[in-house]
Amino acid sequence: MEPDNINLDELGCELHELIARLYPIHRCISGDGVRETLAILNEHVPVEVHEVPSGTQVLDWTVPREWNVRDAYIKDADGRRLVDYRRSNLHVVQYSRPLRRVVSWDELEQHLHTLDEHPDWIPYRTAYYSDTWGFCLSRRQYDELKNRAGRPFEVRIDATLQDGSLTYGEIYLPGESRDEVLISAHVCHPSMANDNLSGLAVAAYLAKHLSTRRRRYSYRFVFAPGTIGAITWLSRNERNVGRVKHGLVLALLGDEGNTTYKRSRRGNAQIDRAVEHVLAHSGSDYSTVDFTPFGYDQRQFCSPGFDLPMGCLMRSANGHFPQYHTSADDLDLVKPASLADSWSKCLSVIELLENNRVYRNLSPKGEPQLGRRGLYELSASRQDGAVLQQAVLWVLNFADGSRTLLEIAERASLGFAVIREAAELLIRHDLLAPCEKTAAQENLSATTPCLHASPSSG
Amino acid sequence: MEPDNINLDELGCELHELIARLYPIHRCISGDGVRETLAILNEHVPVEVHEVPSGTQVLDWTVPREWNVRDAYIKDADGRRLVDYRRSNLHVVQYSRPLRRVVSWDELEQHLHTLDEHPDWIPYRTAYYSDTWGFCLSRRQYDELKNRAGRPFEVRIDATLQDGSLTYGEIYLPGESRDEVLISAHVCHPSMANDNLSGLAVAAYLAKHLSTRRRRYSYRFVFAPGTIGAITWLSRNERNVGRVKHGLVLALLGDEGNTTYKRSRRGNAQIDRAVEHVLAHSGSDYSTVDFTPFGYDQRQFCSPGFDLPMGCLMRSANGHFPQYHTSADDLDLVKPASLADSWSKCLSVIELLENNRVYRNLSPKGEPQLGRRGLYELSASRQDGAVLQQAVLWVLNFADGSRTLLEIAERASLGFAVIREAAELLIRHDLLAPCEKTAAQENLSATTPCLHASPSSG
Amino acid sequence: MEPDNINLDELGCELHELIARLYPIHRCISGDGVRETLAILNEHVPVEVHEVPSGTQVLDWTVPREWNVRDAYIKDADGRRLVDYRRSNLHVVQYSRPLRRVVSWDELEQHLHTLDEHPDWIPYRTAYYSDTWGFCLSRRQYDELKNRAGRPFEVRIDATLQDGSLTYGEIYLPGESRDEVLISAHVCHPSMANDNLSGLAVAAYLAKHLSTRRRRYSYRFVFAPGTIGAITWLSRNERNVGRVKHGLVLALLGDEGNTTYKRSRRGNAQIDRAVEHVLAHSGSDYSTVDFTPFGYDQRQFCSPGFDLPMGCLMRSANGHFPQYHTSADDLDLVKPASLADSWSKCLSVIELLENNRVYRNLSPKGEPQLGRRGLYELSASRQDGAVLQQAVLWVLNFADGSRTLLEIAERASLGFAVIREAAELLIRHDLLAPCEKTAAQENLSATTPCLHASPSSG
Repeated sequence: MEPDNINLDELGCELHELIARLYPIHRCISGDGVRETLAILNEHVPVEVHEVPSGTQVLDWTVPREWNVRDAYIKDADGRRLVDYRRSNLHVVQYSRPLRRVVSWDELEQHLHTLDEHPDWIPYRTAYYSDTWGFCLSRRQYDELKNRAGRPFEVRIDATLQDGSLTYGEIYLPGESRDEVLISAHVCHPSMANDNLSGLAVAAYLAKHLSTRRRRYSYRFVFAPGTIGAITWLSRNERNVGRVKHGLVLALLGDEGNTTYKRSRRGNAQIDRAVEHVLAHSGSDYSTVDFTPFGYDQRQFCSPGFDLPMGCLMRSANGHFPQYHTSADDLDLVKPASLADSWSKCLSVIELLENNRVYRNLSPKGEPQLGRRGLYELSASRQDGAVLQQAVLWVLNFADGSRTLLEIAERASLGFAVIREAAELLIRHDLLAPCEKTAAQENLSATTPCLHASPSSG
Repeated sequence: MEPDNINLDELGCELHELIARLYPIHRCISGDGVRETLAILNEHVPVEVHEVPSGTQVLDWTVPREWNVRDAYIKDADGRRLVDYRRSNLHVVQYSRPLRRVVSWDELEQHLHTLDEHPDWIPYRTAYYSDTWGFCLSRRQYDELKNRAGRPFEVRIDATLQDGSLTYGEIYLPGESRDEVLISAHVCHPSMANDNLSGLAVAAYLAKHLSTRRRRYSYRFVFAPGTIGAITWLSRNERNVGRVKHGLVLALLGDEGNTTYKRSRRGNAQIDRAVEHVLAHSGSDYSTVDFTPFGYDQRQFCSPGFDLPMGCLMRSANGHFPQYHTSADDLDLVKPASLADSWSKCLSVIELLENNRVYRNLSPKGEPQLGRRGLYELSASRQDGAVLQQAVLWVLNFADGSRTLLEIAERASLGFAVIREAAELLIRHDLLAPCEKTAAQENLSATTPCLHASPSSG
Repeated sequence: MEPDNINLDELGCELHELIARLYPIHRCISGDGVRETLAILNEHVPVEVHEVPSGTQVLDWTVPREWNVRDAYIKDADGRRLVDYRRSNLHVVQYSRPLRRVVSWDELEQHLHTLDEHPDWIPYRTAYYSDTWGFCLSRRQYDELKNRAGRPFEVRIDATLQDGSLTYGEIYLPGESRDEVLISAHVCHPSMANDNLSGLAVAAYLAKHLSTRRRRYSYRFVFAPGTIGAITWLSRNERNVGRVKHGLVLALLGDEGNTTYKRSRRGNAQIDRAVEHVLAHSGSDYSTVDFTPFGYDQRQFCSPGFDLPMGCLMRSANGHFPQYHTSADDLDLVKPASLADSWSKCLSVIELLENNRVYRNLSPKGEPQLGRRGLYELSASRQDGAVLQQAVLWVLNFADGSRTLLEIAERASLGFAVIREAAELLIRHDLLAPCEKTAAQENLSATTPCLHASPSSG
């Protein structure tokens, strides 16, 4: 896989356009909004859609009934729609039961949710797996309703909650190896742009890009509803999940915050080191945090029975920016430049994984004579030649069959790209060869030696 | 073992009263003072008294002759007792040989010990295993003697040093397992309150408390003279000492200083991690220091031939407070509140050890559906419900048969108590089960996997 | 090996005198200058001289033709020698091809090397393995030539470049064991004092000193040209290089900078810990840096096919002082006191290695009774008795067959010398015995247990 000349400005705009197109759709953990979303993604890259019937047992869970909303509102006694689903699908508490009632203010008030700190924002609330109903509204709307508290309100949730199916999408790009990189983004949030559309858009464009490239690994992209969708996917793929050698959960990739990486449960998996290396050499500030069993679908993929080597890449982390889970997570919050930057970092991680092999110096006793091979005056050959010259020496010295290129880059405090270039230069001069069965493929730690006999001084 | 509603104020007063009763007794490494002390402890909890005859070979040592003092003094030429054993048993250098002599000032001066920095305090000195004699006195008494230097002095040490026995006490509380927790306090110091009466009192009250409780471990309390007593006990228990899985040497537990913990020789034994966890979550400042082969009887228990996993719990460490080994280590130095706090910390450590098992999540693939079990809205159920909710998720994720609850608490940065409560909740819902042979019982490190097959994704 | 009463002032002067005698000689990677240098070293300690013919294949390299210079100059049109080899052998680029030409300024200028920041200094340049020529000169000389740019110059390099041999010297001092300590210093630099004469002088005086002493290890000193010389030596000693258990590359040992130690590729070899211990207890500031595959002949000895446990000891590191590789690296730069201090530190490292055995406490259960052996009142016996007393207890506690004395010294934060003295005291009292096959001999890590069964409590 070779680096490309991607125009990141253009890419950022395309990502933002895709998000803008997906934004109005009312997604939930089931229902037509998910199908519509996957259909749009399918226009960019072929998505295989899976439907799993309500009632299906999935691990410890059961696929719930399907929920779809046609309309919902709160009208005052004069018939005015003071809260109107047609203006925001966040107004209805997700998975509210169908309803048509006239209610007093006292009763209605029990079912209203607002954000007092942000009087113009509508919060996002869910009521999965509980037989209830509710409305989310801005504080200003709430005050308007309260002003009419003396008279009854008409409340309508024109929804269906019935047997149907849970929908998820999958893209599988076979590579030279059946070992997989799994990339997951949740697809269950209504009109919010950063959470989860940014993740979907970046993932879809990664898939689109990778589909045209030579791939060492196979790539699997999963667009499934949060929690129940990940559990459903895991349940149906239990036998093959061992093929997942590296993975990322993508979410919240469009805001202007610094990148945040949450490590896998293992904490030192190759994906963890790869992401941290890319971020450390990105030139931007970033944070890394240890795995916790909270947050996005890492909690399913990293449950102890699976323990997949998957981290979570975000910009501002969930719960750590004010617009999180509100109507203010809108198309203004996500920026083309941030989206393109997130995509680019993901691709750098993938390029690292693709190229992170274990090599062996074929002339390990003393330095080989670089001069007669034209490898000694690299510093004169181009602007960053001095760094490449150093990289050549680092690779020669540490490519002893026990270290991945990433480990050599870490040891040398050099970027992966120049170490990889040095390795390719040495391969071309027959000074380096890959170990057939690499530690990288096995996700082994740095201390596990390659199966190849290491050269010894006898 | 359940936490109790202990009135710590009352307990502190009882501990201080016990110390006050033991304070006047003249203890030494042998003699009737030890027997009298053990007899008083026996009033609180049954103490088995062992007598080991002088001349008995114990490891590399020999039990010495028994030493008892009836009286001792220095009289001036007018017959006035300027230094009088009846006023403080610290006046005589411990194990001084019996003596009745008239001596000049020049000779006497060679046998006097004072503390120049503290003119009113009497130092504590010993002369075990050497045939000599001496007096300890305040600087003021010294000056008074010196004023009479022109005339002879009468010196009397009315003591016996003859074959007898070394005495130590033992309390054994059998538990479900023969694996033992060993708690040791030395019993050889004369009238000093912190060193060693605080340790004896706290240990005796721990034994009293544990005697009424269900115990997973067996508990053994040893009250023996420092060094020779520990060596004697080790010599006589050499075959069974492998049962000791955890242990503490208790000393200096009554002053107002912060708690100090000195780690076992192993440095990362379960007792070390347990004590450090309890101290870190105690809300008070504390210190931990690495093992050194100096100080209390850890140096015997942690000698390389035994290497028992035993730490030492103190408040101000030995040698690190001015009253150490002087007459100012008196009943004012030790405070009821400090004594009760020390006792309480010891009990927390014991409760941690009792409950520190290795568990296995019985539904390890994905999260189990907590909602239908009433385990998802714990944050609403009580004030600290949100922490309990987190603890439930931490335990589910990390109880994979390879980690103790303490290791999970450390990983989660939560207190042991809430992690344990989460585990119990999960056990009641059939989501968690103990591993039969636990790492805890074997004192294994975190990296040693449980013998149970860990769940895998296949 | 016992410490000696060395007069370091005298030694420093002798080292400086030796350097002053070697300074005028024109050394290069081959040629008579190396032979002359080895002949002078041979006056101090017998040096075996090896000649390896040009064309010999050595690992990936070929021994080059031999280069010798009789004369070289640049004359102006009036026949004046403006640049004169007889005044400095740095003037000619090393391995320049023989030459006698009249050239214009424009052509000449392409072959001149100066240091603009230091107008009076002549730089040091080499052209090994490339068919070219050049002159190094001060900026002032350059300006003088340029002033005569209108007229032609006569350029002469009266040198021979023809089949001959590469020369290196070796000193082998057999010890009780065939396990070796390898000490290497390069011998290929012309008139520069710190680089490399300081290393040669210190190494020769170490050899001289060790030749008169009892040696546990065998010692091998190699004085070879940089890179090609080390490669030649490795090639000819490939089968026996596994005997090298510890090693040092010596260079730049005479300037007034702090000592710098560059670790072996292994990073935690016994030599690394030994040098760092000596430096940490030296009372002077120092630096340690991790191995990089650049710099002196460590890059050959630590190439992955050999990976010898060899570090590099310097004062100011190569490239880190302005006089490096210039005519200002002269007899003023190197100081007798620095030379003697470097020699002394090397000797301390050697003494540590010689005495760094693994011992076993023969009375490991409890402390042995030190009092009856006269080992308990060491603090009274001499000024630093208290430290020796502590050292005795540290050795007794940690000499369990799994740790070297160095590891005990590190654990105790005490100097190696007092730990070693304590060990010797305990051996004399039959309380300690060496393990026959020591971890030290095998260069094993701290965590590898001795083959001896460790005492256990049963």
